[in-house]
Amino acid sequence: MSDRNIRVEPVAGLAVEDQEVEIVERKGLGHPDSICDGIAEHVSQALAQTYLDRVGKVLHYNTDETQLVAGSAAPAYGGGEVLEPIYVLIVGRATQEYDGQKIPTETIALRAAREYVGENFPELEFGTDIVVDIRLGEGSGDLQDVFGEEERTVPSANDTSFGVGHAPLTETEEIVLDTERRLNGEYSDDHPELGEDIKVMGKRESDHIDVTVATALVDTYVDGLDEYREAVRNVREYVHDLATEYTDREVSVHVNTADDYDSGAIYLTHTGTSSEMGDDGSVGRGNRANGLITPNRSMSMEATSGKNPVNHIGKIYNLLSTEIARAVVEEVEGIREIRVRLLSQIGQPIDDPHVADATIVTEDGVSVADIEEEVTAIVDRELADVTGITERVIDGELSTF
Amino acid sequence: MSDRNIRVEPVAGLAVEDQEVEIVERKGLGHPDSICDGIAEHVSQALAQTYLDRVGKVLHYNTDETQLVAGSAAPAYGGGEVLEPIYVLIVGRATQEYDGQKIPTETIALRAAREYVGENFPELEFGTDIVVDIRLGEGSGDLQDVFGEEERTVPSANDTSFGVGHAPLTETEEIVLDTERRLNGEYSDDHPELGEDIKVMGKRESDHIDVTVATALVDTYVDGLDEYREAVRNVREYVHDLATEYTDREVSVHVNTADDYDSGAIYLTHTGTSSEMGDDGSVGRGNRANGLITPNRSMSMEATSGKNPVNHIGKIYNLLSTEIARAVVEEVEGIREIRVRLLSQIGQPIDDPHVADATIVTEDGVSVADIEEEVTAIVDRELADVTGITERVIDGELSTF
Amino acid sequence: MSDRNIRVEPVAGLAVEDQEVEIVERKGLGHPDSICDGIAEHVSQALAQTYLDRVGKVLHYNTDETQLVAGSAAPAYGGGEVLEPIYVLIVGRATQEYDGQKIPTETIALRAAREYVGENFPELEFGTDIVVDIRLGEGSGDLQDVFGEEERTVPSANDTSFGVGHAPLTETEEIVLDTERRLNGEYSDDHPELGEDIKVMGKRESDHIDVTVATALVDTYVDGLDEYREAVRNVREYVHDLATEYTDREVSVHVNTADDYDSGAIYLTHTGTSSEMGDDGSVGRGNRANGLITPNRSMSMEATSGKNPVNHIGKIYNLLSTEIARAVVEEVEGIREIRVRLLSQIGQPIDDPHVADATIVTEDGVSVADIEEEVTAIVDRELADVTGITERVIDGELSTF
Amino acid sequence: MSDRNIRVEPVAGLAVEDQEVEIVERKGLGHPDSICDGIAEHVSQALAQTYLDRVGKVLHYNTDETQLVAGSAAPAYGGGEVLEPIYVLIVGRATQEYDGQKIPTETIALRAAREYVGENFPELEFGTDIVVDIRLGEGSGDLQDVFGEEERTVPSANDTSFGVGHAPLTETEEIVLDTERRLNGEYSDDHPELGEDIKVMGKRESDHIDVTVATALVDTYVDGLDEYREAVRNVREYVHDLATEYTDREVSVHVNTADDYDSGAIYLTHTGTSSEMGDDGSVGRGNRANGLITPNRSMSMEATSGKNPVNHIGKIYNLLSTEIARAVVEEVEGIREIRVRLLSQIGQPIDDPHVADATIVTEDGVSVADIEEEVTAIVDRELADVTGITERVIDGELSTF
Repeated sequence: MSDRNIRVEPVAGLAVEDQEVEIVERKGLGHPDSICDGIAEHVSQALAQTYLDRVGKVLHYNTDETQLVAGSAAPAYGGGEVLEPIYVLIVGRATQEYDGQKIPTETIALRAAREYVGENFPELEFGTDIVVDIRLGEGSGDLQDVFGEEERTVPSANDTSFGVGHAPLTETEEIVLDTERRLNGEYSDDHPELGEDIKVMGKRESDHIDVTVATALVDTYVDGLDEYREAVRNVREYVHDLATEYTDREVSVHVNTADDYDSGAIYLTHTGTSSEMGDDGSVGRGNRANGLITPNRSMSMEATSGKNPVNHIGKIYNLLSTEIARAVVEEVEGIREIRVRLLSQIGQPIDDPHVADATIVTEDGVSVADIEEEVTAIVDRELADVTGITERVIDGELSTF
Repeated sequence: MSDRNIRVEPVAGLAVEDQEVEIVERKGLGHPDSICDGIAEHVSQALAQTYLDRVGKVLHYNTDETQLVAGSAAPAYGGGEVLEPIYVLIVGRATQEYDGQKIPTETIALRAAREYVGENFPELEFGTDIVVDIRLGEGSGDLQDVFGEEERTVPSANDTSFGVGHAPLTETEEIVLDTERRLNGEYSDDHPELGEDIKVMGKRESDHIDVTVATALVDTYVDGLDEYREAVRNVREYVHDLATEYTDREVSVHVNTADDYDSGAIYLTHTGTSSEMGDDGSVGRGNRANGLITPNRSMSMEATSGKNPVNHIGKIYNLLSTEIARAVVEEVEGIREIRVRLLSQIGQPIDDPHVADATIVTEDGVSVADIEEEVTAIVDRELADVTGITERVIDGELSTF
Repeated sequence: MSDRNIRVEPVAGLAVEDQEVEIVERKGLGHPDSICDGIAEHVSQALAQTYLDRVGKVLHYNTDETQLVAGSAAPAYGGGEVLEPIYVLIVGRATQEYDGQKIPTETIALRAAREYVGENFPELEFGTDIVVDIRLGEGSGDLQDVFGEEERTVPSANDTSFGVGHAPLTETEEIVLDTERRLNGEYSDDHPELGEDIKVMGKRESDHIDVTVATALVDTYVDGLDEYREAVRNVREYVHDLATEYTDREVSVHVNTADDYDSGAIYLTHTGTSSEMGDDGSVGRGNRANGLITPNRSMSMEATSGKNPVNHIGKIYNLLSTEIARAVVEEVEGIREIRVRLLSQIGQPIDDPHVADATIVTEDGVSVADIEEEVTAIVDRELADVTGITERVIDGELSTF
Repeated sequence: MSDRNIRVEPVAGLAVEDQEVEIVERKGLGHPDSICDGIAEHVSQALAQTYLDRVGKVLHYNTDETQLVAGSAAPAYGGGEVLEPIYVLIVGRATQEYDGQKIPTETIALRAAREYVGENFPELEFGTDIVVDIRLGEGSGDLQDVFGEEERTVPSANDTSFGVGHAPLTETEEIVLDTERRLNGEYSDDHPELGEDIKVMGKRESDHIDVTVATALVDTYVDGLDEYREAVRNVREYVHDLATEYTDREVSVHVNTADDYDSGAIYLTHTGTSSEMGDDGSVGRGNRANGLITPNRSMSMEATSGKNPVNHIGKIYNLLSTEIARAVVEEVEGIREIRVRLLSQIGQPIDDPHVADATIVTEDGVSVADIEEEVTAIVDRELADVTGITERVIDGELSTF
């Protein structure tokens, strides 16, 4: 066992699953904030990969500040049009020269943005429906040389920061997360009318779960109000079926509740996202690293997307603490809920946090003392493998929003 | 008593003050994220006030998306210079025409930004050290006519959203909050060398509190390393004295711990903010509505700054729930900690939330049942006066970050 | 005969062909200024065509202000890369709403820009190598309703302005014009190594013509210095052969004279244009409406590209005067050189200029009096058909730079 | 006498003063194109001066590409307001580091722009009425080290380019130039209602001169239509009186002829420039180096404003040829008109042009042969002092537009 400062404690409160009121939210792929998260993270991956390919290590960069300015559009049944493009400004810092070699950071970032938009938003034509501009300065430069492939040294924390993770997800959380993922996944394969801008809110009061879905529909695939209403009904049914896979509680599903069919105020778009018409967005304003906004749980304010995964502790510790929490509940019996917090110390190796703090709600008949050693070992093991997080982020295996 | 859905419940857990580990953070006035918060909120106030003055009601607007792109600078003892300006893009929506009358929304916003920068950042020359650009589109326009002075009707919620407030602050929270406020207040009056970019992190483990301050110093007022070190020492002493006003616990204060005097790597700036050199920022990424980042407490992800205070429920409910919590602990005996959550329903009057949910940790010998009625009455009274929040926001009386 | 104010006069000087020193320049398709001219004019055509298609008339617009900010690149034999993209800002005014109908002016403009770049600059990837942004405001709006298809009324001049045209071209002018056109045409079909940024300067002293060509080469198709030198030689030979088609005078051809093979300073690019590396550009700074810069001749300062071809007199009169001059020399015998100037009066129909002023150098044995009537009739006829210019511009039949 | 290639020749044509039709134009200080010229040139001076002060020589830079995007405004008698700011983008290249020393090129440029706007446009508040942004890249860097103070070596031409100058001005030219200068000078001192955006067009047909003035009036100083009309009348009288100082020909003066008092369409502005409302502008689109647009004379297309005055031959030769022409007519008797053209050769010292070509119309009784030697000597002398032009440009003594 290492001498890492790992603390395992019971919590005197209720697991979220057992609390009276629970609120959960997820901003889907096409929400303006998530578009920014996605572009920022994709740019980050591309930069990291390029640095590894060209100089064998990830140089200093940080691209967690993409800003989206909404456009304007005129959707119409059967196909409208964009009037003014969405404007996206990629902001950040990246090392542009290393050892005499120029790195085309802006070209890499713009290509990554184009690729991300192309893969995820088929209705958004890059360069005309969405104009992407870039301001990538040089950083302060004192944080380079941080991550070489051969050496595999553990970098030091760049800040005094904090990450937090939870496991397992509650039923409501599972439903909210999966609703968006499957709507934007298998469902949309057969339903091109579904836009990517899907916002899901789950509210549980005692044993009743309300799932509220706001989803942009794409005008090209909707020929009139009847088709629109049918599309909304289909989503409602799909989500209801989905929810019952996760819970025996009573579930009500509400889709596009702000619609007013009489006045014609419906959620019809040309591109599938509300950023075509007035909704701005930016990185770090939406989902936390586990894909959810969970006011019942401890959350970190750090934007995870776009940050350098080598030494940006706010990113690494949010992802790592979530991984640790999952590993513990998977491997240890008797845990109803675990929260893992990691607090860094600037300048210290990131595998040795100032404190790693696991608080646990056990199941009946289990005490924290029974499992403390087991949990500590897992936390220790995962911390030792912290650079694995970096690799999986660069490879795009870990979602950040 | 109204028939508002108000719930008052005990919490089975510990008050934050009694938990083993507590983490608190505040990004000061000159932190890049806070600069954005401040500009956005000041722009919002100016727009709201102008709408009231010109058309007698606050029209639809939302300016919660300011983006800051760092500049570059060459600080030097005795006075360096800015090399490339900080770039700020004010983003949002605002109604530009009402009843045939044009409202100069962009002019108002730019003047508000200039005023805010001028008042708060004396070292930042507007237009040269910091270039402020603007992209204020028109909104979807369906949310106008929301707030008239004469009628004083209660507007409807624009979204299904959520606000949360807490009281009282813990000792650590008080220390963190006040450290920044007084350093940027009375202390800086006598110490022009102190920049506005002050970040304070408080960590309490049991009965030991660590206060870590990172503060930019202004080169013009620092003639050499000796003066720099003295300035750092002065801050440390000042903060230590300040902390002892709030606690009997043991306090350690750390200032600019990343400095390395030997290599000359110190936190010296020309303008007093790290955004002069590589640190980008945006709205809603830093402090919550109560001025703090508190991972031990339930938090909302909503950006409060810059939002329309008339009907933007994310803003109103975060401010209101905080006010309610404060009122309750002030007026009711026996409360160790209260959390108030307000959940809106889109389309419903904002003084009638879907649920107002107060969870309380009582002091020994007091049960929630004893005080439930009293608490409910206060919550009810404050909800009835929800538009008072709007007015105080417009008047600049309520801080949003 | 109409009562238009047409004046035909002899000139007491020498035809340019007979002057001692003649200077002629052409900035080719890929010169930064010409890129802007081309985008601006293509945007203009697309807007005019859209207005005609949607509302039956060309509404008020003006897009003659595109600005290009150079990028940076790292060309290399066999294929380098772009480091920072070229940035293009399309600036102008366009009517965005007519009779309740929204016109997607920004979308149209961006698509036109994309189309133009795609067709003419195969090495420039739109959106990544070249970022195109747009700021299209509304105009003052008092100049709408100007050109309907049915009515075909003659619009009024929007300004007191001036256009000038000449014919025939001198030998040097023919050579300069055709050198660029054929290099960017048939020659580049077989020589992909030739970039589009070709600048041609012709200088004739008495009977010796120097043709100086500066042409960007594309790194992907040049494997080393030997290939580079061969490419340069090929251009020189091609241009020399071409020149002898037009003249019996002695011709010297110089290609990329600023190259220094020893130091490796050669004109190698990755994208075929110097705007990839430091050369900015904007509309109206390069070629006049006849495709040339001719300091020996009277020139107008008006930017022709991007202007509204319906009532923007600076555009129409430059094109029309050139057409008139060509028509006269084609149809009338005995003219060595003609200059046609058209001066508008604001508010008057554009087919009735304040003065149409033709000055002529006749061939030996011909007096202006002999041909005055004939010339006047042609000028009168062409003026009567002024709206034909507008149509040909919209159809893209008339080059503007 | 040097062995410079200087040619002095008679012209077989008429002096412009003796031609039948003459057209002259000047875009005043506040015309959008001139605003750009002025900012660009002021930025250039500031950069050159800073380089001299800091490193003892002018380093490579070029700032001749400022772009102005019009704002929108709501002028009103007694005082209106700006709705959307004018946006100015300063574009160019400048050396940002020399010999380890950082030069704050963007800060210098922005301060120069602020200073220029402040001094010349009192109604335009910098940063709010007019937002100035900047994109100053690094140049290709191969043209540095060009001009040291001690050594005073003559730099080499950076391009094959061309400059042209004329003297003396015709009566019409004098009137047009002085009308704008005195209106924007002594006249506006007593008439704050006069905006800086004054466009003057002179047309002479035989012995009748029409002077057409379009001048923006400032709403703050105009209380109603009567005052407006009086202001227009005052300008007309002033200009008429001014014109008679220069000519005995018949003069008609027209001011704001596009006004329509019945419909209220008048040239009233809030800031004194049309760029507040729809008129864009950029460098090099307006006046030539002598302050005029003169289609009767040979002109260069080069933008003079903003270019590096050390080795940018297009700038230097336009200014120098004008100075030479003036010197010749001042010192030599018997010249009715002289045109001086200077043609550079890339890579050659700029005091030794490929050809310096003076063409002269003599007065009756004087032949070119009589004065050739005298003229040649002056041309030679002025060429020898070419670097004097550079110094006077940096000191702001020579106007460029």
